[in-house]
Amino acid sequence: MRPERELIDLIREIISKDPEELLELGRDDASARKLAGGIYVFNTDMVAETTDLLPGMSLKQFARKCVVSNFSDLAAKGARPLFFMASAGLSRDMSDDDFLSLIEGLEEGSREFGAYFVGGDLGESRELMIAGFAVGRIEKRLVKRSGARPGDVVFTTGWFGLTWLAFQHLLRGMDLPADVRVEAIKAAYEPVARIREGITASAYASSSIDSSDGLYWSLEELSKASGHGFLVERIPLHPAVELLASKGRVDPVEATFHGGEEYEIVFSVPRDRADILQEEFTKKGLFLIKIGKVVEERGVFLELNGEIEEVEEGGWEHFKSRG
Amino acid sequence: MRPERELIDLIREIISKDPEELLELGRDDASARKLAGGIYVFNTDMVAETTDLLPGMSLKQFARKCVVSNFSDLAAKGARPLFFMASAGLSRDMSDDDFLSLIEGLEEGSREFGAYFVGGDLGESRELMIAGFAVGRIEKRLVKRSGARPGDVVFTTGWFGLTWLAFQHLLRGMDLPADVRVEAIKAAYEPVARIREGITASAYASSSIDSSDGLYWSLEELSKASGHGFLVERIPLHPAVELLASKGRVDPVEATFHGGEEYEIVFSVPRDRADILQEEFTKKGLFLIKIGKVVEERGVFLELNGEIEEVEEGGWEHFKSRG
Repeated sequence: MRPERELIDLIREIISKDPEELLELGRDDASARKLAGGIYVFNTDMVAETTDLLPGMSLKQFARKCVVSNFSDLAAKGARPLFFMASAGLSRDMSDDDFLSLIEGLEEGSREFGAYFVGGDLGESRELMIAGFAVGRIEKRLVKRSGARPGDVVFTTGWFGLTWLAFQHLLRGMDLPADVRVEAIKAAYEPVARIREGITASAYASSSIDSSDGLYWSLEELSKASGHGFLVERIPLHPAVELLASKGRVDPVEATFHGGEEYEIVFSVPRDRADILQEEFTKKGLFLIKIGKVVEERGVFLELNGEIEEVEEGGWEHFKSRG
Repeated sequence: MRPERELIDLIREIISKDPEELLELGRDDASARKLAGGIYVFNTDMVAETTDLLPGMSLKQFARKCVVSNFSDLAAKGARPLFFMASAGLSRDMSDDDFLSLIEGLEEGSREFGAYFVGGDLGESRELMIAGFAVGRIEKRLVKRSGARPGDVVFTTGWFGLTWLAFQHLLRGMDLPADVRVEAIKAAYEPVARIREGITASAYASSSIDSSDGLYWSLEELSKASGHGFLVERIPLHPAVELLASKGRVDPVEATFHGGEEYEIVFSVPRDRADILQEEFTKKGLFLIKIGKVVEERGVFLELNGEIEEVEEGGWEHFKSRG
C-alpha cells in the first residue's frame, strides 16, 4: 500500500468534481458547501468484509453497496442524495488496483444516483470496511417511521426474496436454475436505491422505511414506532422465487420476510391518498406493490389462506447469525 | 454482544437529545434537521484499534478521540460543530460495559464541545473501529488550506512534542519523570479540539489546518496547497519536553515536527492583521504562539542558530510506519 497522501492523489484522478463543493479534495480534507435553508437528512451506514463482502462480489460492488445502503435510507425519508463521504479501513497489503476499484465503486455509485463522492478518510484495519456518510435534502416532506394509522394502505417499491435466494446459493450452496441464479446474484451484488420512489411516496406517506434488514424487520420497526400493527394480505414474493416456492423448494414466507438487503422502500399511506399515489407512480413509470394495511394491534401479521398469523421474528440483525 | 436493536436501546438511555433533531434516535436511523442558509462543513475521520488505541487508553477515551479528531478538522476551517454521527465496527464478544464506554465517549466528547451525538450504525468487525462524521457551521469565514502568501505570519494554538513524548513512553518504553509522564499521557489520551481558537482565527487567517499528523505535515500541506513555503523561526516545543531536550534526552526537532495528534490549529495571517488577531486571542484568554512566516519558496524550513534548513519529511501517515 502506498502512503496515504499518494492514495489521495490517485483518488483525485478518478472522481468527478461536485460543482457545489467549496474545498478541493486532496488539498483540504473536509467538504464545505453553501446550503439553502431547508430540511436535510444525514445518514451513516457501514459495510464490512465479514458480513457484506459476498463470495464472488467485486470490491467495486462492495463499495457501491455502501453508497446504495446510505442513499436508500435517505430515500425512505423523502430526501434526494446530495453528496457522499466515506472512511475506509484498509489492509496494509491492499493493491493499487483493489484500492482503485473501491474508489470507483464509491464514485460511480454516487454519480449513478445523481450525487457526488467528495472524499473522506483512509486508515489501517485488519478488517476491510467502509463507513459511508450521506447527506440529502428533503424535496417534498420528511417522512418518519412513526406515523402509520390503522386503515392506512401499505406498499413496497419492489419484490422480495431474490436476495434471500442469492444468499442461499452463495452462502449455503443451494442449486438454482441458471437464469434465476443470474438474476438473484445481480440483485445481491448490485442493489438499487429507490430514490425517485422514495421522493414520490414522501408526498403521501404516513410512515416509511427501507427494507435493508428484511421485510419482517421493516414492518416491525414501523409497528414499534407507530404503536400499531401491519397486516400483509399479499406476499410480495418475486415471481422467480414464487416459481421455486410452487415446486416446494423454497418457503415463501421465509424468503419474503426473513431475507434482507433488498433496499426497497416499505411505506404506509392514508387510505384516501392511496389511489392518487398509485396514479402518480404509474405516470412516472415507477413500480409499486400494495401488500396490506395497518391494523390496531401492534405486530407483524400475515393473512394466508383466510387465516391471520403473526409473523415470527427474523431477518438480518448484526450480532445475531443470519436467519 | 446483544442484538443490534437492544444495543440501540442502551444508547437511547445515555444520550442527550439534540433540540434541533427532527427524528428520534433508535426509531428512525438517520438524523434530520432544518438548516438555515449558510456555509456548512462536513468531515469524516476514523479511529481503529491497531493504530489509535494506545496502551492503557480506555475505550471511552478512544471514542472521545474520534470526536476530537473530527471536530478539530471543523475548527481549522472556522466551523462550529453542530452534531456528530458514527459507524462503529465491533467484535462479537464485546461486553455491555465496553460498549457503553464507547458510546459515553462519543456522547461526552460531543457535548464537551457544544455539539450532539445523534446516532449512526453498528456493525461486526474483527478490528474495533469508529468512523466519525461531524457537521459544523461556518461562523465568520471558511478558511482553506491554500491561501498563505509570502510575508504572512504563522501561528499555532499550542505547544508540540508532548504527544510525541507519550508515544515514546507508551510504545517504546522511554523512561519519563512522573510529572511529565502524567502530562504527556493526558495529552495523548485526552486531546482537545480548538474550537474557539479556530473560529477566532478564521476571521483573519489566510490558511489553516489542524496538526493531527504532526507539525511537519501540517506545514507541508499548507505549503503544497498555497505553492509557498513555511519558515519556522521559533520551535514551539512544549516546556516539559524542552527540559528533556536541554538534557540531551530528546531531539527537539523530531519531537516538534514529527509527532502527531496534537490537534492544535496551525494557521497563517496577513502581516497587517497579526496584531489584531493576537489582541483578540489575548482578550478571549486563548493561547497562541507565533512560530514563523510564509516564504516564497515551497517547502518547510527551520531557522536554527542563524541557519535555515529544510525540515525532512516525517510525522504520522497511514500505511507508513511511525517515525
